Amino acid sequence: MPINIKNFLLSKNKKSKIGDFQDLEHIDGVAISAISADLYKETRDDLVLFYFRDGANYASVYTQSKIISENIKWNLNLKSNSVKALLVNAGNANAFTGKQGFKGIAQIAEELSKELTIKMSEDEEKKNFVKSNEILFGSTGTIGEKFPAEKIKNSLPDLIKKIKYTQNKYLWMKAALGIMTTDLVPKLSMEECLIGNSEVKIYGIAKGSGMIFPNMATTLGYIFTDADIPSGILKKLLKKNIETTFNAISCDGDTSTNDMVTFFSTKKTKHSKVKSINDNKLKEFDKSLHAVMLNLAKRIAADGEGASKFISVKVRSARNISDAKKVAFSIANSPLVKTAIAGEDPNWGRIIMAIGKAKADLNLNKLAISFGDIKVIEKGQLFSNYEEAVVAEYLQGEKIDLVVDLNVGSKDFTAYTMDLTKQYIEINSDYRS
Amino acid sequence: MPINIKNFLLSKNKKSKIGDFQDLEHIDGVAISAISADLYKETRDDLVLFYFRDGANYASVYTQSKIISENIKWNLNLKSNSVKALLVNAGNANAFTGKQGFKGIAQIAEELSKELTIKMSEDEEKKNFVKSNEILFGSTGTIGEKFPAEKIKNSLPDLIKKIKYTQNKYLWMKAALGIMTTDLVPKLSMEECLIGNSEVKIYGIAKGSGMIFPNMATTLGYIFTDADIPSGILKKLLKKNIETTFNAISCDGDTSTNDMVTFFSTKKTKHSKVKSINDNKLKEFDKSLHAVMLNLAKRIAADGEGASKFISVKVRSARNISDAKKVAFSIANSPLVKTAIAGEDPNWGRIIMAIGKAKADLNLNKLAISFGDIKVIEKGQLFSNYEEAVVAEYLQGEKIDLVVDLNVGSKDFTAYTMDLTKQYIEINSDYRS
Repeated sequence: MPINIKNFLLSKNKKSKIGDFQDLEHIDGVAISAISADLYKETRDDLVLFYFRDGANYASVYTQSKIISENIKWNLNLKSNSVKALLVNAGNANAFTGKQGFKGIAQIAEELSKELTIKMSEDEEKKNFVKSNEILFGSTGTIGEKFPAEKIKNSLPDLIKKIKYTQNKYLWMKAALGIMTTDLVPKLSMEECLIGNSEVKIYGIAKGSGMIFPNMATTLGYIFTDADIPSGILKKLLKKNIETTFNAISCDGDTSTNDMVTFFSTKKTKHSKVKSINDNKLKEFDKSLHAVMLNLAKRIAADGEGASKFISVKVRSARNISDAKKVAFSIANSPLVKTAIAGEDPNWGRIIMAIGKAKADLNLNKLAISFGDIKVIEKGQLFSNYEEAVVAEYLQGEKIDLVVDLNVGSKDFTAYTMDLTKQYIEINSDYRS
Repeated sequence: MPINIKNFLLSKNKKSKIGDFQDLEHIDGVAISAISADLYKETRDDLVLFYFRDGANYASVYTQSKIISENIKWNLNLKSNSVKALLVNAGNANAFTGKQGFKGIAQIAEELSKELTIKMSEDEEKKNFVKSNEILFGSTGTIGEKFPAEKIKNSLPDLIKKIKYTQNKYLWMKAALGIMTTDLVPKLSMEECLIGNSEVKIYGIAKGSGMIFPNMATTLGYIFTDADIPSGILKKLLKKNIETTFNAISCDGDTSTNDMVTFFSTKKTKHSKVKSINDNKLKEFDKSLHAVMLNLAKRIAADGEGASKFISVKVRSARNISDAKKVAFSIANSPLVKTAIAGEDPNWGRIIMAIGKAKADLNLNKLAISFGDIKVIEKGQLFSNYEEAVVAEYLQGEKIDLVVDLNVGSKDFTAYTMDLTKQYIEINSDYRS
């Protein structure tokens, strides 16, 4: 049975460890349709179209894996800086599907371009061609299973019929639900800000989930703005902000076969021209984009498979940023740390172990560790007033802050992750059955 | 209640996924004592002494972590190539215990050297001094808890009283049980071989367990031979053989705070002098040492926390050894691969994912994957006669071979690991309670 979006919005699932969802409303220049193409055993939305009637500038970052999915290959082949549509399917990764998978995309692209062109002619009494090389594809699901190109192709008429040019919170929710795999909750985020005197919006949705360690999940993130930003600057903004957001969660995603984060600019809001990423007018926009991306990234980590707690690992005062990252991820990826937190056990020895193995520059006599505001280690020694019971109580919360102060430099990095629970194993030992 | 060793030997625990234990008998020049120093809540042996009355040449490899335990610091300070004793405690890692932990060792070493010297004078009517800097220490257990030096010191008289100069299988088993933490079964292994015309023995015991990923567990491995090998050659033999044994399991152990593998030569068996590691006389010995170490390493992986299956990941025909290792460990460390195998799910897509993210040189058109003898991928495509049911049946076994043939070079590497089960989480979320 399809999820009843209104009920979902009212349900307790709206609550998240890291705060409620924001309600996304309308953003100019984006049209959305989400339907079921029958790609799952149970009926659910699994095919989502974002249609930019008047085109959108865009920039993408993709997986760094040596084995990439067919849809990513397709996207990498596109030469233009502007697209008309993004089609996302869940239920099949279209990875390791070879020629069949790639051809499937080509056929869908051709069909979709035809159908959208026809629709445009009807709707607007003008020929608004959508070319097949103006369509991006996102895919997520099982790797190595035949890509269901026919099913998707056959669903296109229904998909196109249901395109809505005006969005509301229900439609965005439907889209965010439609791209989920084992995610328990959709991920949405938004900010509004000024470019010059013009108010612009930045909306984003994402999916994540199978990501207890970096490089394991398929992360999809789609961010939309009605501002008018050239694709070159979109690319720079995306690259700059991804390091501390999507690449700071313990699924940095860089290395699944299908990872994809794309930033679209629909150019619908008029503002004075933005000439470079250093343009002062972009300062607020840059901050807002970071907020949207960080919000999405945190939601992905908080909803990591089986997660019962959301964990921030804040590493401070490292010699350099590489050391800060090494230590943060060494802790964030440690199954021993993550199982201890799942068990609400103040086993700080495992944090020490994870710091030690990270091979960063250390001065043990300066090392400090705290859980939230509760000091555990100071100057490399157990804090004099340390009380295990106080930390144990802190660990009963859903949001855990681990703070590691290396005190050997000035560089900070925060990684986001979740605890490692039995549910993770349950989910992953029978993902396909 | 102390484990009844005879019952244990007869019990089903003697069975292992990778074959029964070998029975270790007597090896000249080693004396053993194992008692309880009351380091655990329940009564069990937790203090094990290996005493070399006439000294033993030795060589060690230790953790590569930046944070090392106090006993490893002590060991690294020893300047001699020969020792008289190794004292191993379970129940406390003596890591991040600072001055208290190091002083504790110094006190124990002093006391032990005194008591052993007294014992010697009584036993042999001669003064056979054991100096405190002729004693090595091994520790395993929780990090960051006060080192129970007093308890250990107070147990020394009992420990020394129970020294046995002649070993049998029960005594070796008792020693192997005494160094365990969350291990379910002890690890023992032996080989006999020739150096020249003299038959020599190589005996080994080990502990492992908390090691679902590399760099996480405390691995202790102690190997003993009655051959007469200088410590410089012991060191080379150890370094050479550790790469494909202890460092090939998915706890390569290099980076816990306490890891330690030590090789002792008691010099009791006369044979023609061994001059270098390239000495032809050492060929058989080298092979036998490898067999002992590999046997122990496999037992460690097979008994990994919560393991229900032992997995070998054989990577073949890589461009270079580094690529072969990268791919092997990328698969062996992937929680998605390991949960799939726990679920007996032929989800080979996750193996593809793990190969892709390893960033080794690949030619997808040449890639082959099989489970045991069952082909899954050939020339980068799903094998024409692939039947999922056949693989699913294979996965019901306890010993799983994953074979990945990169077909781009001539270098092979095999990593050993186990599946990732709910029991792992159970064990590690309340390790200390």
